[in-house]
Amino acid sequence: MKFATLKDQTLDGRLLIVCRDLTRCVDASSIAPSLLHAVQHWAEVEEPLRQLYDKLNSGVTAGQPFNPFLCTAPLPRSPQWCDGSAFLNHANLMEQAFKTPPIPDLERIPLMYQGASDDFLGPYDDVPLPSEADGIDFEGEFGVILDHVAMGSTPQQALNQVRLLVQLNDWSLRAMGPREMRSGFGFLQAKPSTSFAPIAVTPDELGDAWRDGRVHLELHVEWNGAHFGHPHGGQMSFGFGDLIAHAARTRRLSAGTIIGTGTVSNTSREVGSACIAERRVIEMIDYGDARTGFMRFGDRVRMQARLPGTDDGPFGVIEQQVVQA
Amino acid sequence: MKFATLKDQTLDGRLLIVCRDLTRCVDASSIAPSLLHAVQHWAEVEEPLRQLYDKLNSGVTAGQPFNPFLCTAPLPRSPQWCDGSAFLNHANLMEQAFKTPPIPDLERIPLMYQGASDDFLGPYDDVPLPSEADGIDFEGEFGVILDHVAMGSTPQQALNQVRLLVQLNDWSLRAMGPREMRSGFGFLQAKPSTSFAPIAVTPDELGDAWRDGRVHLELHVEWNGAHFGHPHGGQMSFGFGDLIAHAARTRRLSAGTIIGTGTVSNTSREVGSACIAERRVIEMIDYGDARTGFMRFGDRVRMQARLPGTDDGPFGVIEQQVVQA
Repeated sequence: MKFATLKDQTLDGRLLIVCRDLTRCVDASSIAPSLLHAVQHWAEVEEPLRQLYDKLNSGVTAGQPFNPFLCTAPLPRSPQWCDGSAFLNHANLMEQAFKTPPIPDLERIPLMYQGASDDFLGPYDDVPLPSEADGIDFEGEFGVILDHVAMGSTPQQALNQVRLLVQLNDWSLRAMGPREMRSGFGFLQAKPSTSFAPIAVTPDELGDAWRDGRVHLELHVEWNGAHFGHPHGGQMSFGFGDLIAHAARTRRLSAGTIIGTGTVSNTSREVGSACIAERRVIEMIDYGDARTGFMRFGDRVRMQARLPGTDDGPFGVIEQQVVQA
Repeated sequence: MKFATLKDQTLDGRLLIVCRDLTRCVDASSIAPSLLHAVQHWAEVEEPLRQLYDKLNSGVTAGQPFNPFLCTAPLPRSPQWCDGSAFLNHANLMEQAFKTPPIPDLERIPLMYQGASDDFLGPYDDVPLPSEADGIDFEGEFGVILDHVAMGSTPQQALNQVRLLVQLNDWSLRAMGPREMRSGFGFLQAKPSTSFAPIAVTPDELGDAWRDGRVHLELHVEWNGAHFGHPHGGQMSFGFGDLIAHAARTRRLSAGTIIGTGTVSNTSREVGSACIAERRVIEMIDYGDARTGFMRFGDRVRMQARLPGTDDGPFGVIEQQVVQA
């Protein structure tokens, strides 16, 4: 199934089911008022939602044209948002960029920070930030939306609780990052509101591209209309099962919790990057100094996971402009 | 005003108004179904809630006996939970306990981590944790519950958005702390669900004990019935205005956001501590080794902020037992 969330006057928005090719949609709020409510009551609503999805795809239900510009994030707020750093290539490069001390047990224990989850941005929302001097950067990622996860779940038990897959941009302010890392308390000012592509999909929609707890798709990133990178999600050093189990080690996770991959990052230089900081550290390695600046107000970034050999993807597109708050 | 939240079948619980001496209460859910809803609609509900509070205190409304054992946390879930480390005496001692590198700008920029806010515990709930080997510890703190705070608010603007004061226990697993600090990503496994005293109060209830953005009360802590410490909240190195403004530097804060002080900690040795880790590091300094162990399953901790010269306090009592998950 494919879902989106229509902006309305509520904090959680209104649930839409979107057809497989993203051209049409139908209001599903008579089954569940919002996607958060659906995830919190999955056992009861899954079957009626699937029936409506089938009717929409077969044409029995006509629906209406799907307009992603009217959408907010699939979950405009969620109970919890924990973001990993599951691509060790990214972690290794950032260690060089930030000049921070070597991270202990990097290969064995997933890195993960707790992020704010009360105020997510939609795929075409402007991104208001206070200052260009903060080092405005994007981070292209994948994520999962979970059902309840018990404390102490194994990676396989954890993976069984994945209900939806999403694509996101974990906006980052690089000027704050090194100090917040050295404080040991982790990211806070360095991580403003996160943005999401309009469509959340059940794992079956990805077919073979969802396997081993990984999204095996390229994430295509453009900055101001120019290609920036298209790293592949399959190269996660830890799968989602490991990431979720890490988050649930000493706590239970409420239904609606979102877990992210961290910046998609491949060792191959040819595919480029999904964040500016990585390009800058590669420039430092190659030329001795970073040549690419961070984002300016008015800059735009576009992200889209693509099915092999197509310009299309299951999550739709994030395309946003950074503006002065 | 004084509020509590009755456990029921909903995620947010049911709103109670509690009389000034905490003996009686009245269901206020016809004005606002939950305390979270009240904070999210404060301008509309403040006056009717105050009228009901006045009637309860004057005896015009009889109400019913208040039973804190039926209560959950004032907010059993909240949009956001950010915990500072505003008592630098605690930060300095923990640096010695954890043997972590010196924290940059410690005197100038508040330390703050983002915590999970989807699953808070009530004042008499058992505390299920996976293992005694994780170094189970309590941290006695104060906190504020906020109305909306705009991005970039000044400390004074931020302080104007404080709606309620609370008392809490930020449960901590010390075995995870040093590694998570060294990772730079901050606390995650080290911070399981946080617990709250039953009563949330409007700042006016504290009279002169709420000033300079600080709660000027002693926090009395007992471990298995023995006095453990009674440090004073007035010695915060940063006030709540500074803490909130720090959290809102690059984001807006939703109504219902909770900001904590971090462990209440005084330089005077005579008042004891509000967490075990502090006592242990003082033992290391004095005797060369830590003599006090962390908590065992079955152990109990009791916390109560007290009005000067009394055994009573505005927030009621947290008294919990640690149990195996």
